[in-house]
Amino acid sequence: MRVLAVDPALRSTGFAVVEGDPAGSCRAVTFGVVHNPASREQSRCLAQIRTALAALIQEFQPDCAAVEGVIYVQSFRTAITLGAARGAALVAMAEAGLEVFEYAPRRVKQAVVGRGGAAKEQVAFMMRALLRLEAAPDPDAADALAIGMTHVQAMRRTGQPGGAAGKRV
Amino acid sequence: MRVLAVDPALRSTGFAVVEGDPAGSCRAVTFGVVHNPASREQSRCLAQIRTALAALIQEFQPDCAAVEGVIYVQSFRTAITLGAARGAALVAMAEAGLEVFEYAPRRVKQAVVGRGGAAKEQVAFMMRALLRLEAAPDPDAADALAIGMTHVQAMRRTGQPGGAAGKRV
Repeated sequence: MRVLAVDPALRSTGFAVVEGDPAGSCRAVTFGVVHNPASREQSRCLAQIRTALAALIQEFQPDCAAVEGVIYVQSFRTAITLGAARGAALVAMAEAGLEVFEYAPRRVKQAVVGRGGAAKEQVAFMMRALLRLEAAPDPDAADALAIGMTHVQAMRRTGQPGGAAGKRV
Repeated sequence: MRVLAVDPALRSTGFAVVEGDPAGSCRAVTFGVVHNPASREQSRCLAQIRTALAALIQEFQPDCAAVEGVIYVQSFRTAITLGAARGAALVAMAEAGLEVFEYAPRRVKQAVVGRGGAAKEQVAFMMRALLRLEAAPDPDAADALAIGMTHVQAMRRTGQPGGAAGKRV
Protein backbone atom coordinates (compact mmCIF):
# COMPACT_ATOMS: atom_id res chain seq x y z
CA MET A 1 0.00 0.00 0.00
CA ARG A 2 1.28 3.38 -1.04
CA VAL A 3 0.20 6.50 0.87
CA LEU A 4 0.57 10.16 -0.03
CA ALA A 5 0.91 11.98 3.29
CA VAL A 6 0.82 15.75 3.54
CA ASP A 7 1.42 18.29 6.29
CA PRO A 8 -0.09 21.41 4.71
CA ALA A 9 1.00 24.99 5.41
CA LEU A 10 0.90 28.03 3.14
CA ARG A 11 4.66 28.65 2.91
CA SER A 12 5.97 25.16 3.56
CA THR A 13 3.91 22.04 2.86
CA GLY A 14 5.63 18.80 3.79
CA PHE A 15 4.84 15.79 1.63
CA ALA A 16 5.83 12.13 1.55
CA VAL A 17 4.96 9.00 -0.33
CA VAL A 18 5.36 6.02 1.99
CA GLU A 19 4.98 2.38 1.06
CA GLY A 20 4.17 -0.46 3.42
CA ASP A 21 4.89 -4.03 2.39
CA PRO A 22 3.13 -7.20 3.58
CA ALA A 23 6.21 -8.19 5.63
CA GLY A 24 5.57 -5.23 7.90
CA SER A 25 8.27 -2.82 6.84
CA CYS A 26 7.81 0.67 5.56
CA ARG A 27 9.89 2.66 3.09
CA ALA A 28 9.98 6.25 1.90
CA VAL A 29 9.38 6.42 -1.86
CA THR A 30 9.85 10.19 -1.96
CA PHE A 31 9.52 13.17 0.37
CA GLY A 32 10.12 16.90 0.40
CA VAL A 33 8.58 20.31 0.86
CA VAL A 34 6.49 22.55 -1.40
CA HIS A 35 7.93 26.01 -0.71
CA ASN A 36 6.14 29.29 -1.36
CA PRO A 37 8.17 32.49 -0.97
CA ALA A 38 6.85 35.13 1.44
CA SER A 39 6.39 37.51 -1.49
CA ARG A 40 3.89 35.26 -3.26
CA GLU A 41 0.21 36.09 -2.86
CA GLN A 42 -1.89 33.65 -0.88
CA SER A 43 -4.04 32.55 -3.84
CA ARG A 44 -0.89 31.77 -5.87
CA CYS A 45 0.60 29.78 -2.98
CA LEU A 46 -2.54 27.68 -2.77
CA ALA A 47 -2.52 27.01 -6.52
CA GLN A 48 1.13 25.96 -6.22
CA ILE A 49 0.28 23.49 -3.43
CA ARG A 50 -2.47 21.90 -5.50
CA THR A 51 -0.35 21.75 -8.66
CA ALA A 52 2.66 20.25 -6.89
CA LEU A 53 0.59 17.58 -5.14
CA ALA A 54 -1.30 16.73 -8.35
CA ALA A 55 2.06 16.20 -10.10
CA LEU A 56 3.26 13.99 -7.23
CA ILE A 57 0.10 11.88 -7.40
CA GLN A 58 0.53 11.56 -11.16
CA GLU A 59 4.14 10.45 -10.79
CA PHE A 60 3.92 8.16 -7.76
CA GLN A 61 0.36 6.80 -8.03
CA PRO A 62 -0.49 6.45 -4.33
CA ASP A 63 -3.47 4.28 -3.29
CA CYS A 64 -4.74 6.68 -0.65
CA ALA A 65 -3.84 9.85 1.21
CA ALA A 66 -3.39 10.99 4.81
CA VAL A 67 -3.24 14.34 6.59
CA GLU A 68 -2.83 15.46 10.17
CA GLY A 69 -5.85 16.84 11.97
CA VAL A 70 -5.35 20.39 13.15
CA ILE A 71 -5.75 20.70 16.89
CA TYR A 72 -4.32 24.00 17.90
CA VAL A 73 -2.94 27.12 16.25
CA GLN A 74 -1.90 30.49 17.64
CA SER A 75 -4.70 32.61 16.28
CA PHE A 76 -7.91 32.70 14.39
CA ARG A 77 -6.19 34.28 11.38
CA THR A 78 -3.63 31.46 11.33
CA ALA A 79 -6.46 28.91 11.46
CA ILE A 80 -8.04 30.40 8.32
CA THR A 81 -4.71 30.42 6.46
CA LEU A 82 -3.79 26.91 7.57
CA GLY A 83 -7.28 25.77 6.65
CA ALA A 84 -6.81 27.21 3.16
CA ALA A 85 -3.54 25.30 2.65
CA ARG A 86 -5.26 22.18 3.89
CA GLY A 87 -8.12 22.85 1.45
CA ALA A 88 -5.74 23.13 -1.50
CA ALA A 89 -4.14 19.80 -0.53
CA LEU A 90 -7.49 18.04 -0.04
CA VAL A 91 -8.68 19.29 -3.46
CA ALA A 92 -5.64 17.66 -5.13
CA MET A 93 -6.28 14.40 -3.27
CA ALA A 94 -10.02 14.27 -3.92
CA GLU A 95 -9.69 15.20 -7.58
CA ALA A 96 -7.29 12.29 -8.05
CA GLY A 97 -9.92 10.00 -6.53
CA LEU A 98 -7.91 9.26 -3.39
CA GLU A 99 -9.59 8.51 -0.08
CA VAL A 100 -8.22 10.82 2.58
CA PHE A 101 -7.63 9.83 6.21
CA GLU A 102 -6.93 12.15 9.09
CA TYR A 103 -4.85 11.50 12.20
CA ALA A 104 -4.53 13.63 15.30
CA PRO A 105 -1.01 15.05 15.81
CA ARG A 106 -0.62 13.29 19.18
CA ARG A 107 -1.47 9.99 17.60
CA VAL A 108 1.12 10.49 14.84
CA LYS A 109 3.81 11.27 17.42
CA GLN A 110 2.72 8.36 19.56
CA ALA A 111 2.97 6.05 16.53
CA VAL A 112 6.45 7.06 15.41
CA VAL A 113 8.19 8.32 18.56
CA GLY A 114 6.17 6.49 21.22
CA ARG A 115 5.22 9.70 22.96
CA GLY A 116 2.34 12.01 21.99
CA GLY A 117 4.13 15.10 23.23
CA ALA A 118 7.36 14.53 21.28
CA ALA A 119 9.22 17.54 19.85
CA LYS A 120 9.43 18.16 16.10
CA GLU A 121 13.16 17.35 16.04
CA GLN A 122 12.50 13.96 17.59
CA VAL A 123 10.10 13.15 14.76
CA ALA A 124 12.79 13.99 12.17
CA PHE A 125 15.35 11.93 14.12
CA MET A 126 13.06 8.91 14.30
CA MET A 127 12.08 9.16 10.64
CA ARG A 128 15.74 9.02 9.68
CA ALA A 129 16.25 5.95 11.86
CA LEU A 130 13.06 4.05 11.04
CA LEU A 131 13.19 4.68 7.30
CA ARG A 132 17.00 4.35 7.10
CA LEU A 133 17.45 7.75 5.46
CA GLU A 134 20.92 9.15 4.80
CA ALA A 135 20.20 12.38 6.67
CA ALA A 136 17.49 13.78 8.91
CA PRO A 137 14.72 15.06 6.63
CA ASP A 138 13.45 18.63 6.66
CA PRO A 139 11.11 18.89 9.69
CA ASP A 140 8.02 19.47 7.53
CA ALA A 141 8.85 16.51 5.31
CA ALA A 142 9.51 14.46 8.47
CA ASP A 143 6.01 15.25 9.72
CA ALA A 144 4.58 14.05 6.42
CA LEU A 145 6.66 10.85 6.60
CA ALA A 146 5.35 10.29 10.13
CA ILE A 147 1.73 10.76 9.01
CA GLY A 148 2.28 8.27 6.20
CA MET A 149 3.84 5.69 8.56
CA THR A 150 0.98 6.17 11.01
CA HIS A 151 -1.53 5.38 8.31
CA VAL A 152 0.37 2.32 7.12
CA GLN A 153 0.50 1.03 10.72
CA ALA A 154 -3.18 1.78 11.30
CA MET A 155 -4.22 -0.05 8.13
CA ARG A 156 -2.07 -3.01 9.07
CA ARG A 157 -3.50 -3.24 12.56
CA THR A 158 -7.15 -2.86 11.74
CA GLY A 159 -7.24 -4.32 8.25
CA GLN A 160 -9.26 -1.35 7.16
CA PRO A 161 -9.19 2.38 7.66
CA GLY A 162 -11.83 4.44 9.39
CA GLY A 163 -12.96 4.18 12.98
CA ALA A 164 -9.90 3.38 15.08
CA ALA A 165 -7.57 3.78 12.12
CA GLY A 166 -8.29 7.30 11.00
CA LYS A 167 -11.18 9.57 10.27
CA ARG A 168 -12.12 9.91 6.63
CA VAL A 169 -12.25 13.51 5.50
CA MET B 1 -15.29 45.09 -15.77
CA ARG B 2 -16.55 41.66 -14.83
CA VAL B 3 -15.95 40.27 -11.34
CA LEU B 4 -16.35 36.75 -10.01
CA ALA B 5 -17.29 37.16 -6.35
CA VAL B 6 -17.45 34.23 -3.96
CA ASP B 7 -18.60 33.71 -0.38
CA PRO B 8 -17.02 30.33 0.39
CA ALA B 9 -18.38 27.76 2.84
CA LEU B 10 -18.08 23.99 2.79
CA ARG B 11 -21.78 23.16 2.37
CA SER B 12 -23.01 26.31 0.66
CA THR B 13 -20.70 28.55 -1.37
CA GLY B 14 -22.38 31.66 -2.76
CA PHE B 15 -21.11 32.91 -6.12
CA ALA B 16 -21.90 35.80 -8.43
CA VAL B 17 -20.58 37.32 -11.63
CA VAL B 18 -21.18 41.06 -11.53
CA GLU B 19 -20.47 43.52 -14.32
CA GLY B 20 -19.89 47.23 -13.92
CA ASP B 21 -20.28 49.50 -16.94
CA PRO B 22 -18.56 52.86 -17.52
CA ALA B 23 -21.87 54.71 -16.92
CA GLY B 24 -21.72 53.63 -13.30
CA SER B 25 -24.36 50.94 -13.17
CA CYS B 26 -23.88 47.36 -12.13
CA ARG B 27 -25.65 44.21 -13.29
CA ALA B 28 -25.75 40.59 -12.19
CA VAL B 29 -24.58 38.32 -15.01
CA THR B 30 -25.21 35.16 -13.00
CA PHE B 31 -25.40 34.09 -9.36
CA GLY B 32 -26.18 31.04 -7.27
CA VAL B 33 -24.91 28.59 -4.69
CA VAL B 34 -22.60 25.55 -4.88
CA HIS B 35 -24.31 23.08 -2.56
CA ASN B 36 -22.62 20.11 -0.92
CA PRO B 37 -24.83 17.62 0.92
CA ALA B 38 -24.03 16.93 4.59
CA SER B 39 -23.25 13.30 3.70
CA ARG B 40 -20.39 14.26 1.36
CA GLU B 41 -16.85 13.99 2.72
CA GLN B 42 -14.97 17.22 3.23
CA SER B 43 -12.34 16.53 0.57
CA ARG B 44 -15.09 15.82 -2.00
CA CYS B 45 -16.92 19.04 -1.08
CA LEU B 46 -13.73 21.02 -1.62
CA ALA B 47 -13.14 19.41 -5.02
CA GLN B 48 -16.73 20.25 -5.94
CA ILE B 49 -16.22 23.93 -5.00
CA ARG B 50 -13.11 24.17 -7.17
CA THR B 51 -14.69 22.37 -10.10
CA ALA B 52 -17.86 24.46 -10.02
CA LEU B 53 -15.95 27.74 -9.84
CA ALA B 54 -13.55 26.68 -12.61
CA ALA B 55 -16.56 25.95 -14.83
CA LEU B 56 -18.09 29.36 -14.01
CA ILE B 57 -14.84 31.13 -14.85
CA GLN B 58 -14.65 29.20 -18.12
CA GLU B 59 -18.23 30.14 -19.03
CA PHE B 60 -18.37 33.77 -17.90
CA GLN B 61 -14.75 34.88 -18.34
CA PRO B 62 -14.46 37.36 -15.45
CA ASP B 63 -11.57 39.87 -15.38
CA CYS B 64 -10.84 39.49 -11.68
CA ALA B 65 -12.17 37.92 -8.49
CA ALA B 66 -13.24 39.06 -5.02
CA VAL B 67 -13.84 37.34 -1.69
CA GLU B 68 -14.87 38.45 1.76
CA GLY B 69 -12.24 38.51 4.49
CA VAL B 70 -13.08 36.26 7.41
CA ILE B 71 -13.30 38.18 10.66
CA TYR B 72 -15.06 36.01 13.14
CA VAL B 73 -16.32 32.45 13.40
CA GLN B 74 -17.72 30.44 16.28
CA SER B 75 -14.85 28.05 16.84
CA PHE B 76 -11.39 27.06 15.88
CA ARG B 77 -12.70 23.96 14.11
CA THR B 78 -15.07 26.11 12.05
CA ALA B 79 -12.18 28.40 11.12
CA ILE B 80 -10.20 25.47 9.71
CA THR B 81 -13.18 24.22 7.70
CA LEU B 82 -14.09 27.67 6.43
CA GLY B 83 -10.45 28.26 5.57
CA ALA B 84 -10.43 25.04 3.54
CA ALA B 85 -13.48 26.13 1.51
CA ARG B 86 -11.82 29.48 0.97
CA GLY B 87 -8.65 27.68 -0.13
CA ALA B 88 -10.55 25.63 -2.73
CA ALA B 89 -12.11 28.83 -4.11
CA LEU B 90 -8.79 30.70 -4.21
CA VAL B 91 -7.16 27.78 -6.05
CA ALA B 92 -9.81 28.00 -8.79
CA MET B 93 -9.30 31.76 -9.11
CA ALA B 94 -5.50 31.69 -9.11
CA GLU B 95 -5.32 28.79 -11.56
CA ALA B 96 -7.46 30.77 -13.99
CA GLY B 97 -4.97 33.64 -13.66
CA LEU B 98 -7.43 35.97 -11.89
CA GLU B 99 -6.23 38.57 -9.41
CA VAL B 100 -8.12 38.15 -6.15
CA PHE B 101 -9.22 41.03 -3.90
CA GLU B 102 -10.47 40.75 -0.36
CA TYR B 103 -12.98 42.98 1.44
CA ALA B 104 -13.89 42.97 5.11
CA PRO B 105 -17.53 41.95 5.77
CA ARG B 106 -18.33 45.30 7.40
CA ARG B 107 -17.08 47.13 4.37
CA VAL B 108 -19.23 45.02 2.02
CA LYS B 109 -22.34 45.73 4.13
CA GLN B 110 -21.45 49.39 4.35
CA ALA B 111 -21.10 49.53 0.56
CA VAL B 112 -24.41 47.89 -0.32
CA VAL B 113 -26.68 48.58 2.67
CA GLY B 114 -25.02 51.70 4.07
CA ARG B 115 -24.52 50.12 7.46
CA GLY B 116 -21.64 47.84 8.47
CA GLY B 117 -23.76 45.93 10.96
CA ALA B 118 -26.60 45.12 8.54
CA ALA B 119 -28.36 41.75 8.85
CA LYS B 120 -28.03 39.07 6.16
CA GLU B 121 -31.66 39.52 5.04
CA GLN B 122 -31.06 43.21 4.44
CA VAL B 123 -28.22 42.37 2.09
CA ALA B 124 -30.50 40.06 0.07
CA PHE B 125 -33.23 42.72 0.07
CA MET B 126 -30.85 45.41 -1.17
CA MET B 127 -29.33 43.16 -3.82
CA ARG B 128 -32.77 42.53 -5.24
CA ALA B 129 -33.47 46.27 -5.35
CA LEU B 130 -30.10 47.49 -6.60
CA LEU B 131 -29.68 44.84 -9.26
CA ARG B 132 -33.39 44.79 -10.19
CA LEU B 133 -33.74 41.05 -9.62
CA GLU B 134 -37.13 39.36 -9.89
CA ALA B 135 -36.88 37.84 -6.42
CA ALA B 136 -34.61 38.12 -3.39
CA PRO B 137 -31.61 35.90 -4.05
CA ASP B 138 -30.53 33.06 -1.77
CA PRO B 139 -28.71 34.71 1.16
CA ASP B 140 -25.35 33.14 0.26
CA ALA B 141 -25.67 34.24 -3.37
CA ALA B 142 -26.71 37.70 -2.11
CA ASP B 143 -23.49 37.94 -0.10
CA ALA B 144 -21.51 37.10 -3.23
CA LEU B 145 -23.42 39.71 -5.25
CA ALA B 146 -22.66 42.27 -2.54
CA ILE B 147 -18.93 41.41 -2.60
CA GLY B 148 -18.93 41.80 -6.38
CA MET B 149 -20.69 45.18 -6.21
CA THR B 150 -18.28 46.35 -3.52
CA HIS B 151 -15.33 45.54 -5.74
CA VAL B 152 -16.87 47.28 -8.76
CA GLN B 153 -17.49 50.41 -6.64
CA ALA B 154 -13.99 50.29 -5.16
CA MET B 155 -12.37 50.02 -8.59
CA ARG B 156 -14.50 52.86 -9.90
CA ARG B 157 -13.61 55.13 -7.00
CA THR B 158 -9.90 54.50 -6.86
CA GLY B 159 -9.23 53.69 -10.49
CA GLN B 160 -7.21 50.73 -9.35
CA PRO B 161 -7.53 47.99 -6.79
CA GLY B 162 -5.30 47.44 -3.79
CA GLY B 163 -4.77 49.78 -0.86
CA ALA B 164 -8.07 51.49 -0.16
CA ALA B 165 -9.89 49.35 -2.68
CA GLY B 166 -9.20 45.87 -1.42
CA LYS B 167 -6.35 43.73 -0.22
CA ARG B 168 -4.88 41.42 -2.81
CA VAL B 169 -4.74 37.82 -1.63
